[in-house]
Amino acid sequence: MVGPEIERLIQLLARLPGLGPRSARRAALALVKRRDGLLLPLADALTAVAESVRTCSVCGNYDTQDPCAVCRDVRRDGSLLCVVQDVSDLWALERTAAFRGRYQVLGGLLSALDGVGPEDLAVARLVERARSPDVTEVILALPATVDGQTTAHYIADALAECEVAVSGLAQGVPVGGELDYLDDGTLLAALNARRPV
Amino acid sequence: MVGPEIERLIQLLARLPGLGPRSARRAALALVKRRDGLLLPLADALTAVAESVRTCSVCGNYDTQDPCAVCRDVRRDGSLLCVVQDVSDLWALERTAAFRGRYQVLGGLLSALDGVGPEDLAVARLVERARSPDVTEVILALPATVDGQTTAHYIADALAECEVAVSGLAQGVPVGGELDYLDDGTLLAALNARRPV
Ligand SMILES: [Zn+2]
Ligand SMILES: [Zn+2]
Repeated sequence: MVGPEIERLIQLLARLPGLGPRSARRAALALVKRRDGLLLPLADALTAVAESVRTCSVCGNYDTQDPCAVCRDVRRDGSLLCVVQDVSDLWALERTAAFRGRYQVLGGLLSALDGVGPEDLAVARLVERARSPDVTEVILALPATVDGQTTAHYIADALAECEVAVSGLAQGVPVGGELDYLDDGTLLAALNARRPV
Repeated sequence: MVGPEIERLIQLLARLPGLGPRSARRAALALVKRRDGLLLPLADALTAVAESVRTCSVCGNYDTQDPCAVCRDVRRDGSLLCVVQDVSDLWALERTAAFRGRYQVLGGLLSALDGVGPEDLAVARLVERARSPDVTEVILALPATVDGQTTAHYIADALAECEVAVSGLAQGVPVGGELDYLDDGTLLAALNARRPV
């Protein structure tokens, strides 16, 4: 009824997290209504991101340059390495402006159920980086879920051969909570009160 | 921190209905992660819609052709004209497949608060169409809000000069709706409009 072009747009919008079929239809309408003010700028922004954004070969962050801005920043503390599940968690921590070290994005969590093993994650890459004499502490900023804690223990074991302290976020991260849904204050408190694993 | 390209994308996504700043960030990340599967197809879909979708010069609907598919469909009943606030309401009615007449999109509701007068809406266009001898009934499918009912009364007055019946949607309990979840106004209206079973 709405034509194949709009139907295709609704279907793609519905695949974004946070938008269901009904809200995708509303979003598509809002875009059609605001062709010059929103639809065309969004198309341009998507194309610009597609052309410019790359995965950082050092830490796994997304940026327009490789290495990313965090990895390039010489003022950051290279002795601290913060392990996050996903780029969204890296961004959430950066918004607190509380952490001045560097990151390693894992790309997921160990999960027997979903068949995710260590080889699917950047564990080997993390161990390689942690072997550097510059690195003195690895902070496991992983969610307080079963998979998150399983992954934290696995990584702590894998890092035993490296001469680094291994710490985790303090309690304060709600059980079952995803990091990037947390308010900045909770994240900040959990980071400052980090403890050895 | 995330670079100007991604920042711009997040800002534009946050202007879509249903997406706030936080969910826009999640959506942007999902797009970056799925560059070929989602980001580029969405950019293409937006461009296709921008290039092809127009406002129907007859009724105000959106379609790739002008007049729109509803206005072109000769099987539809030209004696019934359904007035809706917005294209989203037209689409909602079309999904029910219950109405086989034609539409007039108003483009909003009268609102003293927001300074929306009759000249801002397609009222004159509606009266012009209702003057056609083909049209026998105008159905005001407007929301049961103060602005919706003010607008319905204004339109009914404006149509007094035309030889058409003017009707409104029945008010009542939504099909499948639990009574104790309804607001008092709806319950009151449903009670006042009670009918013999
Ligand atoms: Zn990096
Ligand atoms: Zn039309």
